[in-house]
Amino acid sequence: MDRFNRNNRIVAITKMLLGNPNKVISLNNFLEPLNAAKSTISEDIVIIRDTMEKLQLGKIETISGAAGGIKYIPKISKEEMNRFALDLCENLMNKERIVPGNFIYINDIMFNPKIISKAGIILSSFFEGQQIDYVVTVETKGIPLAYEVSKNLGVELIIVRRDTKVTEGPTVTINYVSGSSGRIQNMSLSKKSLKKGSRCIFIDDFMKAGGTAKGIMDLLKEFESQLLGIGVLVDNVELDRKLVTEYFSIIEFFGIDKDGESILKPSKFFK
Amino acid sequence: MDRFNRNNRIVAITKMLLGNPNKVISLNNFLEPLNAAKSTISEDIVIIRDTMEKLQLGKIETISGAAGGIKYIPKISKEEMNRFALDLCENLMNKERIVPGNFIYINDIMFNPKIISKAGIILSSFFEGQQIDYVVTVETKGIPLAYEVSKNLGVELIIVRRDTKVTEGPTVTINYVSGSSGRIQNMSLSKKSLKKGSRCIFIDDFMKAGGTAKGIMDLLKEFESQLLGIGVLVDNVELDRKLVTEYFSIIEFFGIDKDGESILKPSKFFK
Repeated sequence: MDRFNRNNRIVAITKMLLGNPNKVISLNNFLEPLNAAKSTISEDIVIIRDTMEKLQLGKIETISGAAGGIKYIPKISKEEMNRFALDLCENLMNKERIVPGNFIYINDIMFNPKIISKAGIILSSFFEGQQIDYVVTVETKGIPLAYEVSKNLGVELIIVRRDTKVTEGPTVTINYVSGSSGRIQNMSLSKKSLKKGSRCIFIDDFMKAGGTAKGIMDLLKEFESQLLGIGVLVDNVELDRKLVTEYFSIIEFFGIDKDGESILKPSKFFK
Repeated sequence: MDRFNRNNRIVAITKMLLGNPNKVISLNNFLEPLNAAKSTISEDIVIIRDTMEKLQLGKIETISGAAGGIKYIPKISKEEMNRFALDLCENLMNKERIVPGNFIYINDIMFNPKIISKAGIILSSFFEGQQIDYVVTVETKGIPLAYEVSKNLGVELIIVRRDTKVTEGPTVTINYVSGSSGRIQNMSLSKKSLKKGSRCIFIDDFMKAGGTAKGIMDLLKEFESQLLGIGVLVDNVELDRKLVTEYFSIIEFFGIDKDGESILKPSKFFK
């Protein structure tokens, strides 16, 4: 059988932890493949934990008891969060992003893994320590971000549809009022999606008046489930009367000024 | 300034590599934060590379020259791939998945980060070494999988819409014929999505007759861009005359037998 030294083991354990955020991994999983004693693996983990702490690469928690083990919680430093939010504001301020109707084109941001994986770490850190069963989003633009958050929190994603699909079996459909346009819209979710009594958070790209978030709350009620929190990438703070009051955001959008430039700032959670 | 030993550096470098698949990272990026000489970092990397090779955790390539550095290519072993495909078949065979119309409910699979991250590594490994600019998908079910593939390949994702959105500016819309239903459908893509002359691959959850894949090919032509490859999670091989001939899949679906059970096997790429 192969022998592995400390360096080898540290590479393998680090990879296993990073690939399974927020999942409790029993030390027994490492013993056989790394051909090492539990005490040796424990020492390896102390080294990994201390390094991550020192370099602010994330947190490793030890869970004791029979179902215990270690789990990795993705984190980035406060400075990196601030830099990320500032860079994103600068990027979004580009005049070429404004499309007819004074919307900001953000597809390239929402679908860029380099940006979205960092935004996902920031948003999931707001919900750290809460017991969450699902991350919910509405199609389409926020899906990669919501997926990253669900991965970081170690749970499944649920994607609410604008219409029903024959491939998804019986669905529950609700009507909701878009807070900004006042129009009545639909959202649907397959009955197979969700267990009764689930604890969910809602992740989206943009928060305007909060109509969609309010709709999600109503839809989850139909599943006897709860919305525990909301996180968005961009909060449109032009509309100060929102249908939901508690939510996290990464940047705030103050509208477009008379020179046609978007006004954006890192959100209040970064002060 | 902090001093870091080899173990500390190995944790930090491993994390940096795993977080940036298929991106060339210059060794200079490590020198200052890790307070070490280039020769020391090079030795660290040799250890990481050898460990990953031995334990089949991925590949580290060295790119020489002025713009050189190292890059990490996610990989899993052949045995792990086979086990994954077999487990997935078993999971999908569950009779409760069949919904009216003889469709298989697969949302819980497509939106489960644990499953989709592994499927993403398998699909991206089919395109290793090709120069690719974008991963393209059509909303909605395949988005997390396509996102994982784009992340692994170090490129951006493009999501084609079923309809146009006011927030995305001018769009190009094409009609295509669904190969299985024969119906004419639309797909749209914002003109801002894609540069001329881009090289793309298409990733989706399910391949039936290949009408959607053919549509993507036509849509990309409108952007003077090329479709280089196709990868899907499930290939419906009941329909043996497809509109596209070359594509990769992870499992094959042979229809539902007279006892109402789905027949599924790992695809031919796993033999």
